[in-house]
Amino acid sequence: MSNTNISKSDFSSIRGEIEKLNTDRVLIIADHNVWSKYSKLLNLEDISNKETIIYKAPDGEKAKNLQEYESCVEFLLEKGVHRKTHVLAVGGGALSDFAGFVASTLLRGLDWSVIPTTLLSMVDASIGGKVALNSKEAKNLIGAFHKPKNIWIIEGFLETLAEEEQSSGLGEVSKYCFLDKEIFELVQDKNHQISDVIEACANFKYNLTEKDFKESGLRKNLNLGHSFGHAIEKIYNLPHGIAVFWGMALIFKLYCNGNYLKELSLVREKLELDANDSPWHNREFPIMKIMNLISKDKKMVTSTSLELVLIEDIGMPTIKITSLDEIEELLEEKKDELRQFSI
Amino acid sequence: MSNTNISKSDFSSIRGEIEKLNTDRVLIIADHNVWSKYSKLLNLEDISNKETIIYKAPDGEKAKNLQEYESCVEFLLEKGVHRKTHVLAVGGGALSDFAGFVASTLLRGLDWSVIPTTLLSMVDASIGGKVALNSKEAKNLIGAFHKPKNIWIIEGFLETLAEEEQSSGLGEVSKYCFLDKEIFELVQDKNHQISDVIEACANFKYNLTEKDFKESGLRKNLNLGHSFGHAIEKIYNLPHGIAVFWGMALIFKLYCNGNYLKELSLVREKLELDANDSPWHNREFPIMKIMNLISKDKKMVTSTSLELVLIEDIGMPTIKITSLDEIEELLEEKKDELRQFSI
Repeated sequence: MSNTNISKSDFSSIRGEIEKLNTDRVLIIADHNVWSKYSKLLNLEDISNKETIIYKAPDGEKAKNLQEYESCVEFLLEKGVHRKTHVLAVGGGALSDFAGFVASTLLRGLDWSVIPTTLLSMVDASIGGKVALNSKEAKNLIGAFHKPKNIWIIEGFLETLAEEEQSSGLGEVSKYCFLDKEIFELVQDKNHQISDVIEACANFKYNLTEKDFKESGLRKNLNLGHSFGHAIEKIYNLPHGIAVFWGMALIFKLYCNGNYLKELSLVREKLELDANDSPWHNREFPIMKIMNLISKDKKMVTSTSLELVLIEDIGMPTIKITSLDEIEELLEEKKDELRQFSI
Repeated sequence: MSNTNISKSDFSSIRGEIEKLNTDRVLIIADHNVWSKYSKLLNLEDISNKETIIYKAPDGEKAKNLQEYESCVEFLLEKGVHRKTHVLAVGGGALSDFAGFVASTLLRGLDWSVIPTTLLSMVDASIGGKVALNSKEAKNLIGAFHKPKNIWIIEGFLETLAEEEQSSGLGEVSKYCFLDKEIFELVQDKNHQISDVIEACANFKYNLTEKDFKESGLRKNLNLGHSFGHAIEKIYNLPHGIAVFWGMALIFKLYCNGNYLKELSLVREKLELDANDSPWHNREFPIMKIMNLISKDKKMVTSTSLELVLIEDIGMPTIKITSLDEIEELLEEKKDELRQFSI
C-alpha cells in the first residue's frame, strides 16, 4: 500500500496541488459550513484540466450515517465516476471519516486526499486511513482501512475555529503527550508553537499507523482514553477530544493507581485546554450507561472481553485484556470516589 | 493478506468445518430461499461452542442494495458483533457479494467464509474477494476487495439447481474456456465431469486473483465478455452467465474478425448450454442503451475511454484501450449485421 504525503499548504497554493493530481475528475466532498466559508479562498472550482464535482455534506457527525452515504454515493455515481477519479475531503474528522468511506467503497476503492479543517483532524482523524460511518448502535462500527494519498495541512483554518472544536483537538493532543515523551516535553515548553505540536502529533500517528496499518498491534495504543471516551462522548454529547481527555483520566484513576493525573492536569494547563471538572462531577457516575455502550464497542475481542490501553510510564503504553464484568465490578467499587472525581 | 482455503465438503461434514472456526460467534447471512430448503441438511444452528446468528436476505440481486445492507448491518450489530466474529455466506453469487461487503465493512473488516450454492458462484463469484452492492446507476459500483478465509464447495446443491441458474453458471464456464486452453480442452472431452470443470475454473480464477488481488493487471482478463455482458444483462434481464456468453460473442464478432465464434458454438454444445439465438435476434441492436450503460461501467479508466478484454488466441487474453466514441462508431457500422447476428 502506498504512503501518504503529509505536507503543509496554504490557501493560495492548494489549487496548484489539486492541479497536479493524476486524474481528469475530482469529487470534492466538503462540510457544507466549511464550504460556504472557505470555497472562495480555496478556489478549487473551474480547474482547467479537471472536471470538479462538489458534494456538500451535513456538518460533523450528521454526515456519518448510511442515509447520507447513500445520497452522496448515488449523487456522485450519477455525475459519473471512473477508476482514476480522485476524492478530495474538505472538513473536520467526521467529514474525512465519511468521505474516506465513500472513497473506499466507490468502485471498490478510489484514491483520495484530505484537507483537514480542524485541529482534531490535523493531529488525528485525517491520518492513518481509518474511515467509518456510525451505526444506530454506536460510533464507527461500519468502516474500512483506506489511506489517503495526500493530507494538506492549512493552518489558516485554525484562526476561525470554534472554541469547542479547539478544545476537542487539544484533548486529543493531550493523549499524544502520554503516548510519546517528546510530545509531552514539547507541550511543557512554555514557548511551544501550536504548529510544532500539530506536526509532532501528525508524524507520531503516521509512523505508528505505517508500522501497523490494520491495528493488530502497536496501533491499538492510539485508543488510549477511547474505550471510556466513546461512551462518555455519547452520554454527555461532548466534543470527541474532551471525552477522550476524561476517558484517559478514568484510565489513570482506575487502572494506574491515580498516577499521571497530576501530569494530565499539567498538560491541560499548558495546552490551555478548557476541560475543568468531569462531566459527571457531583452527579452519579453513569455505570449502566457506560457498560452498555462499552459492550457494543468494536474493541471487544470476544463477546465478554476487551482490550484497554493503559500506560506503564509516560510514552510507554500497554494493553490490558479485561472482561466486562471486571470493569463493572471496579466501577461499582469506586462509585463514590468517581462521583467526586475531578482533576 | 492471508490465503483462501478452497475445499470440497458435503452436507454431512460442513458442520464440523464451522465448529473448527476460531471464534465464539458466527453470523450466517443466507439467501432466504436456500435457507428454507437446506437449513436442516446443513445443520448449522445450535453449534455447541458458538453463538449463531442468522440473517435471511432476499434472493439474488434483490439483496444487493443499500437498504438491505443497512437492515442487515443494523440487525447484526444489535445482536452483537466483536472483532473475531466470523461471517458465513450461504447462497449464490449475489448473496456472497452482499455478505462479503457486509463482512468487509463491519468493524472495518471481519473474517468470512462462503458456502456457494450455485454453479456460478462455485466457479466464479465466491472466489477472489471482490464483493459489492449495486447502485441505482449500475451493478457492483459500491464494493470492496475482501478475501474469504474458506470456500466450501458442496456439489449436492447442484442437484436441485434451477435450469436458469445452471445455464448462468455454464455461461461463465464458457468464458474460462477462452482464458485457459486446458479448460477449453477439458470441456471438449465428451466424458468430462462437471466436478472436474468446477475445480479447474475455481483454481484458475483463484490463482489469477492471488497474483493480482486489486485488479491492476492480469485479473482484468476475467472481465472477458463483461463490458457488453453487464449492459446486455440489464437490458434483457438475463442470467449473468448467459449475458457474459453473448458479451463474449460480441467481442469475437466485433474485435476478433469473427474468429473463435465457431469454438464458442462448440463450447456451448459440449456444455449443453441453453443459449440459442442472441437476445436481440432479428430485432434492432440496442446501441444507445448499451452505450449508456457501458459509459457508467466501472471499468472506465477515464471519462471517455475504457479497457476491453479481447483474445489473441484461446488462452491468450489481451487488453484493448478504446473510447466510447470508437465503440459507438463500430456498433453503428455493424448495425445491420448485428441485427441478424447469432452463433
